[in-house]
Amino acid sequence: MSGRLTVVGLGPGDARWLTPDAETALAQAEALYGYGGYLERVPPRAGQSRHPSDNREEQARAQAALAAAAAGTKVAMVTAGDPGVFAMGAAVCEAIEHGPDAWRALDVTMVPGVTAMLAVAARVGAPLGHDFCALSLSDNLKPWETVEQRLDAAAGAGFVLALYNPISRARPWQLGKAFGRLRRQLAGATPVVFGRAVGRADERLVVTTLADADPADADMATLIIVGSATTRVIARDGLAPLVYTPRTGELGP
Amino acid sequence: MSGRLTVVGLGPGDARWLTPDAETALAQAEALYGYGGYLERVPPRAGQSRHPSDNREEQARAQAALAAAAAGTKVAMVTAGDPGVFAMGAAVCEAIEHGPDAWRALDVTMVPGVTAMLAVAARVGAPLGHDFCALSLSDNLKPWETVEQRLDAAAGAGFVLALYNPISRARPWQLGKAFGRLRRQLAGATPVVFGRAVGRADERLVVTTLADADPADADMATLIIVGSATTRVIARDGLAPLVYTPRTGELGP
Repeated sequence: MSGRLTVVGLGPGDARWLTPDAETALAQAEALYGYGGYLERVPPRAGQSRHPSDNREEQARAQAALAAAAAGTKVAMVTAGDPGVFAMGAAVCEAIEHGPDAWRALDVTMVPGVTAMLAVAARVGAPLGHDFCALSLSDNLKPWETVEQRLDAAAGAGFVLALYNPISRARPWQLGKAFGRLRRQLAGATPVVFGRAVGRADERLVVTTLADADPADADMATLIIVGSATTRVIARDGLAPLVYTPRTGELGP
Repeated sequence: MSGRLTVVGLGPGDARWLTPDAETALAQAEALYGYGGYLERVPPRAGQSRHPSDNREEQARAQAALAAAAAGTKVAMVTAGDPGVFAMGAAVCEAIEHGPDAWRALDVTMVPGVTAMLAVAARVGAPLGHDFCALSLSDNLKPWETVEQRLDAAAGAGFVLALYNPISRARPWQLGKAFGRLRRQLAGATPVVFGRAVGRADERLVVTTLADADPADADMATLIIVGSATTRVIARDGLAPLVYTPRTGELGP
């Protein structure tokens, strides 16, 4: 059997952050699967079929890709950022666990990539410079109470927070509620970074505070970093401020 | 003034995970700074000076690199993984904040990279597939009590944990104590992954459980992932198991 499935992290979208490993995996694939918006980032190649799907069809997409690989095709599943962080990696594993035995025998490879929080952090300094959590604000697959428990636990213990999936048309109120929840424990002056589409033409960066953080500054393509009590902002004349979290990590005041 | 400082993430060590952005930054530099072990990964280039330093001299290294940039040199500071995750990014920002005014005027750029937890996760499946924390076990710069508070908070709230700096000659007992602490809250069957030097010739991967996790399987180059109550292991005949955390994220039993 020559089929295989490679789940490829494209990084944040700019070609300068696409690893050689990902480039090779895309070049060797006979069929590409993925969310349409991410597939569009991959230039067409002769003899390579393309199978775009909708954003919310993750299990069906994983199953279709696995079935194609099991039938002998060299399949690449493309994802933005890193396949293992709020992306298709877990969906593929889930499909394998609950699918036919043949899928467990498949050659499945994950190609890591630069996930959004690393790209946003790099653009403003080093806000993830000490202990941090990555948390999805989507309550499609977990109860909102779990999100709040995790916000409380992480902020209370002094972790910096990287918030994925902050807002969407179907989830308009979650981000505002999350900011409200965090304001119970963190000072209003806590630095907050909104990073949208980093490295792309429509990039937008906002450095603000928890007191002033406005959910209207976020959309589906935004990654939000909320600092801890130790996170610092360095003002610079004529340059964007630097935001960083020192490696000294006592719990804040 | 033409000097500048670029802090470059080399990724986990294998050239196939070095981004084009990092490659360009290395090629354009007139002087390279960094921990000696990481500088060795960068092939020498004619006309480029090299300034290796010891692992524990982070502030001095940051200051030397900033001074060189302020004097007009195009400097690249190399770090393993991503510069913003337990690496030189925060040390450089800290040096800028407390250094001469001229350093605030410098062109400082961070080039993101694939950090160790993403590479280790990719090699075993998608254990970071849902909410997770990255936590340094080093108590060189924070009290051990803070580490324990964070372990308790993260595990109690259902985050998967990625443990950086688990052990060293000077810190021999911290990892064993961390496992003991986590065993208070997490079942013995919780999956644990040890990933050492992923993508390099001396790569070593161990998939075990929290009950059986042995600190002797870790060294300074090891990244450890401790699952949550929802993390799964898929056994596969003749293949390494797949470890993943489903996107459904209820708090565990």
